[in-house]
Amino acid sequence: MRKTILDCDTVTLDEENGALVIVDQTQLPNRIEMLSLTNIEDIWEAIYLLKVRGAPAIGVSAAIGVYLAMKDIQTEDMGLFMKRFKKAKEYLATSRPTAVNLFWALDRMEAVAYKHGEGSVEEVKEALHQEAVRIREEDIEVCRRIGEHALSLVQPQAGLLTHCNAGKLAAVKYGTATAPMYLGQEKGYGFHIYVDETRPLLQGARLTAFELQSAGMDVTLICDNMVGAVMKKGLIDAVFVGCDRVAANGDTANKIGTSVVAAVAHYYGIPVYVCAPTSTIDMALSCGAEIPIEERSGDEITEMWYEKRMAPQGVKVYNPCFDVTDHELITGIVTEYGVVQEPYEESFQKIFQKAIL
Amino acid sequence: MRKTILDCDTVTLDEENGALVIVDQTQLPNRIEMLSLTNIEDIWEAIYLLKVRGAPAIGVSAAIGVYLAMKDIQTEDMGLFMKRFKKAKEYLATSRPTAVNLFWALDRMEAVAYKHGEGSVEEVKEALHQEAVRIREEDIEVCRRIGEHALSLVQPQAGLLTHCNAGKLAAVKYGTATAPMYLGQEKGYGFHIYVDETRPLLQGARLTAFELQSAGMDVTLICDNMVGAVMKKGLIDAVFVGCDRVAANGDTANKIGTSVVAAVAHYYGIPVYVCAPTSTIDMALSCGAEIPIEERSGDEITEMWYEKRMAPQGVKVYNPCFDVTDHELITGIVTEYGVVQEPYEESFQKIFQKAIL
Repeated sequence: MRKTILDCDTVTLDEENGALVIVDQTQLPNRIEMLSLTNIEDIWEAIYLLKVRGAPAIGVSAAIGVYLAMKDIQTEDMGLFMKRFKKAKEYLATSRPTAVNLFWALDRMEAVAYKHGEGSVEEVKEALHQEAVRIREEDIEVCRRIGEHALSLVQPQAGLLTHCNAGKLAAVKYGTATAPMYLGQEKGYGFHIYVDETRPLLQGARLTAFELQSAGMDVTLICDNMVGAVMKKGLIDAVFVGCDRVAANGDTANKIGTSVVAAVAHYYGIPVYVCAPTSTIDMALSCGAEIPIEERSGDEITEMWYEKRMAPQGVKVYNPCFDVTDHELITGIVTEYGVVQEPYEESFQKIFQKAIL
Repeated sequence: MRKTILDCDTVTLDEENGALVIVDQTQLPNRIEMLSLTNIEDIWEAIYLLKVRGAPAIGVSAAIGVYLAMKDIQTEDMGLFMKRFKKAKEYLATSRPTAVNLFWALDRMEAVAYKHGEGSVEEVKEALHQEAVRIREEDIEVCRRIGEHALSLVQPQAGLLTHCNAGKLAAVKYGTATAPMYLGQEKGYGFHIYVDETRPLLQGARLTAFELQSAGMDVTLICDNMVGAVMKKGLIDAVFVGCDRVAANGDTANKIGTSVVAAVAHYYGIPVYVCAPTSTIDMALSCGAEIPIEERSGDEITEMWYEKRMAPQGVKVYNPCFDVTDHELITGIVTEYGVVQEPYEESFQKIFQKAIL
C-alpha cells in the first residue's frame, strides 16, 4: 500500500538507531521521504534548509537533536560534558532566528541538564532523553488542546482560511492552526478550508493542501493575493494561523503574509485567530518590533521551483521570511490553556499562572 | 546591439504588411519576441493567451484587429460588409471578459463604421483605419496625461508600490500606473519602486520589474504577501495600480490581489491611486458586483512555470483573474482629465462633461 502522510509522524526519535526521523518537507507533495539523522550537523542543516520546519516541529527536533549529540559522549567529567552541551546547544540555536520554540526547547533541555548536574553524566544523559521525549509528547497534547479551544470558536460547515503550514507537518500531530480542522473532521463538521499557497516556498500548496486533502477534508487552494476575493465573497468565516513568536503585547511573528491576511480580514470583519502553544509566547519581548526577522535569498522568489528564471537578471529582491501582525488585528490567541484576548500582556500572565498551578 | 524592451512599442500597426505587431508578453523576461499577426483568429488567440494583455493594450489591439479583419474584404455591398464587421467585432469581444477597453474600442470602431455607412465600403475601411490609428495615438497621450496628474500626488524619493503590470507593456507607451514613474524618471525624482510579483502569472516579476529595470529605475521585487511587511516598515508612500473596469460608484476591477494591496494600505494609512483612462470607466454598471470576473484554469497555480507539480494531485483550485476593490479603499482615481475622488459617480459625470467640451 502506498504510504500516505497520515501514516507518518513528522518528528520522531528512533531509539534503536539513535536518530531523529523526519519527513523531508522539501520533497512534498511529490515524494514522501523519511530522513534518519544521527549527527548534529545533519540536524542543523535539516532545520536550516527547512527539511523540518514549523515552530513546534523545530522545537521538538532541536530537543531530540541536542540529546542525540550528547548521548554518546564518553566522559565522567561533568564540567567537560556541560561544556560540550553548551556548544551543541549554541550550535543548534543558530539554525533559524525567528521561531522562539527552538530556543525554548533548548533552554528546557539545558535546565534539565543543570538540574541533574549533581548526579552522574549518565543520569544527565537519561534526563535529557526523558525531556526530549516529554517535549515531543507534550506537543501532541498541547496541539490537541489548542484544537479543542479553537473548535469552540466556529460552527459546522464554516469556511476557514489558513496561511502557510501550521499543520501536522509543522508539529508532531494535529498542528496548531490545523488542529481545529482535524478535530472538526473527527466530528463531521464539514468545514470548507481555503489554503493560501504561501509564496515563495509554497508551504500552503505543497504542505497544508496536501495534508488536509490526505485527511479527506474539503480543501481549496488559492494564491496569497486571492484572500480579498474569497473574503469579499463571504466564503470565509474565520482565519486560523500559527505563529513563530508572540511578543508580550500580542504582536505576532508568523510566516510572511500573515499580517496581510489579518489586515484584509480586519477590513471585512472576519475574526483572526492565532494558534499559539505557550512555548511560542516570548514575554521577554514587549512588542513585535523586537522580534528578529529572518531574511532569505532572493533566488527563492526569482528562480526556485521554476523551469526558467521568472524575473529580470540583477533585479533587487526583498525576501523577509516572516512578518509581524499587530495585536489589534488579532481577534484571539488560542493557547493550550484557552483563548486569550486583549489586553494580551495581562491575559498571558493569567495563562502562565494557570500553567504553573 | 541587443534589443531592449525600451526599443519596442507594445502594440503597433504595421501598415506595410497589414499586421498587428506585439511583444509576446508570455516570453518575457527571458526573450523579447515580436509577433506579427495578420488574421483575426491569431489576434483573438493572442488576447486570449495573454500574449498581449493590459486593458489599454487589449483595446488598441482589438481596434487594429477588427480593422485588419475588414480591410481586405472585397465587396461593394455595404449590408454584407457590415454583417461581416459585426461578426468580427463579436468574435473579438469573446477573447476576454473583464477589461472594458476591449468592448469600448470595438464600440468606437463600430460607431465609425455606421457614421460612414452612407459612403462606399472603401470609405468605411479608411475610416476604420484612421480610427484604429487614432485609438492607438490617443492611448499614448492619455497615459502621458495620467502620468502628469499622478506625479503631482507624490514627492521625489518616494517609495511607490505597484501590482501586476499596468506598465508600458499594458498600453502603448508609459502605461497607466507606471506613467508617473516614467515621467518622474525623466525629472530625476529617484523613486524607490516596489513591485509585487503578482501570482499566478507573475506579471509583476516578469513584466513590471523588467520594464522599469530596463528604464534604469530603482526596483525591488517582492512576493504579493510581502506588501504588509514593506508598508509596516514605512517603505511605501503611495500605491499606484491600473484597472480593467471601474463601475460608476468607483468600485474597481483590477488584477487579482489589488483589493488585498488596497485593504492593507488602508490599514497602514497609505494612499491608493487607481490610474484609469476614462475608457475603463463603465458608467453602465452601478457597482463592482456587476463587473464580470474572469476565472482561469487552476493549472496556472499548480503547474505552470514549475519544474514539477507544486500542489497535491486533484486539489480544488480557485483562480479568479481579477478582484474588485471597494471604492472606499481608493484614495483617488487618476484619469487623463485629472484626479477624481468621492463621490465618484458625480465626479465621473463632471469628468465626462469636461471630456466633451
